[in-house]
Amino acid sequence: MKDYVVGLDIGGTKLAAGLFDLNLKEISFIKCDTEAFRGGQVVVENCKAIVHQVLEKSGISRDRVASIGISSPGPLDTHTGIVTYVETIGWKNVPIRSIMEEEFNVSVVLENDANAAALAENVRGAGEGTKNMIYITVSTGVGSGIILEKKLYRGSHDAAGEFGHICIVPGGRPCGCGNRGCLQSYASGTALANAARAGITAGENSAILLKAGGIPEKIHAFQVEEAAKENDAFAIKLWEEMGYHLGLGISILVQLFDPDRIVIGGGMSRAWDLFYGSMMESVRSNTYEVLSENLQVVPALLGDKAGVFGAATLGIAIV
Amino acid sequence: MKDYVVGLDIGGTKLAAGLFDLNLKEISFIKCDTEAFRGGQVVVENCKAIVHQVLEKSGISRDRVASIGISSPGPLDTHTGIVTYVETIGWKNVPIRSIMEEEFNVSVVLENDANAAALAENVRGAGEGTKNMIYITVSTGVGSGIILEKKLYRGSHDAAGEFGHICIVPGGRPCGCGNRGCLQSYASGTALANAARAGITAGENSAILLKAGGIPEKIHAFQVEEAAKENDAFAIKLWEEMGYHLGLGISILVQLFDPDRIVIGGGMSRAWDLFYGSMMESVRSNTYEVLSENLQVVPALLGDKAGVFGAATLGIAIV
Repeated sequence: MKDYVVGLDIGGTKLAAGLFDLNLKEISFIKCDTEAFRGGQVVVENCKAIVHQVLEKSGISRDRVASIGISSPGPLDTHTGIVTYVETIGWKNVPIRSIMEEEFNVSVVLENDANAAALAENVRGAGEGTKNMIYITVSTGVGSGIILEKKLYRGSHDAAGEFGHICIVPGGRPCGCGNRGCLQSYASGTALANAARAGITAGENSAILLKAGGIPEKIHAFQVEEAAKENDAFAIKLWEEMGYHLGLGISILVQLFDPDRIVIGGGMSRAWDLFYGSMMESVRSNTYEVLSENLQVVPALLGDKAGVFGAATLGIAIV
Repeated sequence: MKDYVVGLDIGGTKLAAGLFDLNLKEISFIKCDTEAFRGGQVVVENCKAIVHQVLEKSGISRDRVASIGISSPGPLDTHTGIVTYVETIGWKNVPIRSIMEEEFNVSVVLENDANAAALAENVRGAGEGTKNMIYITVSTGVGSGIILEKKLYRGSHDAAGEFGHICIVPGGRPCGCGNRGCLQSYASGTALANAARAGITAGENSAILLKAGGIPEKIHAFQVEEAAKENDAFAIKLWEEMGYHLGLGISILVQLFDPDRIVIGGGMSRAWDLFYGSMMESVRSNTYEVLSENLQVVPALLGDKAGVFGAATLGIAIV
């Protein structure tokens, strides 16, 4: 009987795998280093190894596994199962689906990480019970996964939900994608660190610099978070500006999608109290009152387990 | 046998009704004045009358009508069938669905006009054959209807697709909705006329003023269109700016929805060549290349029959 699925979450730093029954009950779970520094081929081998290990740990026999769901950074092609290009793990056109299908002789489904996390939060996280929900991940960059009528919405070319790269400031800051004014250039960990660096270099007095050992180049978002929590005025202002810009983007989602709920995950969401106020003020000033009144904007619940849960959910869907 | 449906399109100036068979073949079609100036109750009576008339014209007996679909300006509630408030036709909480159900003793379905037109263009207009399509109407104001996976997407509170009121210029021009920087304040007939008026009052030399009888207050979008077609430099610039801003908004739709096609209707879309170039340049500068390359942005095909077609399509869906 094939009554279990595996969820595999591929991240730049960590791999995680879980074995689940068909009701998405977790049987076993493990994490290990991605070891991206050793090159893309090692990452592939580590993906195989962690799935073998999670099976061994559970004591469930391999032929009871019905499918494997994989959550991976993109861009990737869900139809061919190929990860197109992910610099951080050294992958270029890696057919991870067929690799895993051969290794484990089961059906495999591949999905990008933001979509997988969105699905997970919708099925049993902060978006449980909602019909139309948008999951936003704010960390180094910004991504999103869109759940409409309780199903993942992928768009016509698997490219929907590029929330980090909608233009919110016409002609604004240059973005790594080549365009200008993208939300990600204003409301991400990278943007926050850049803004801190620029301000301090221009003479702002802030505890952030001390935390970065006096070296502006070493300023990182987590130091801005620490400083803000210690009441550093400049750091607090930076988080409020981030909230303002994130709220601008969310207002656009609200006006276009009219969702029940927006769920925010990713490393930056841990600093919730530092940006929530300015974010909601910005949402309210840029949406219809009737929509922002009914809207719930909440932090994600599943943390770093979202990828594995989402992958397993997709695995169950193809059983 | 109930093998026909009626589509009724309620507009601020005209009412239109069509009788269709269940394959959406048009049997008869008529238009009449809305007569909104005579008050909301007269508009209701005119709605009943035009449906009676289209039936008479067709020679089809009333008991062969299976349903009536209605396209109306909003806001409205598709669940209760009540038009909440439409100033232009003097309606406030008009239960048009139950009024028509009583009058004709058939099932009636109510939808907002942008959604109905989107559906019509998707079923047999410029969006035929597409899976994910967004219809934009640009006239006095700006609205949109969203078709995802070949179905109308309405959002959680019937309010999705408020494309005219997404913020594209943070803190920008005040909008009639009470917010600032809405797309509609930059890319609509009203915005075009306002910009022409402001420029001319500030000393711009343009043929637009002559067309408005020398009175800036009388400037209307159609005069800006005429002047641009006669190569008036200022008028051309205004249309290009409109295209730029419309393109900004479309780029956001593309990044979020990854649609096959964008269809643009409404009165302003007739001046296609005056804004298409700057619009597409703006779309390309603010989206991923792979998405804008695959994207089709085309003018609507059904013109003022879109509402009736869309309403009839919805009527067929409830048979």
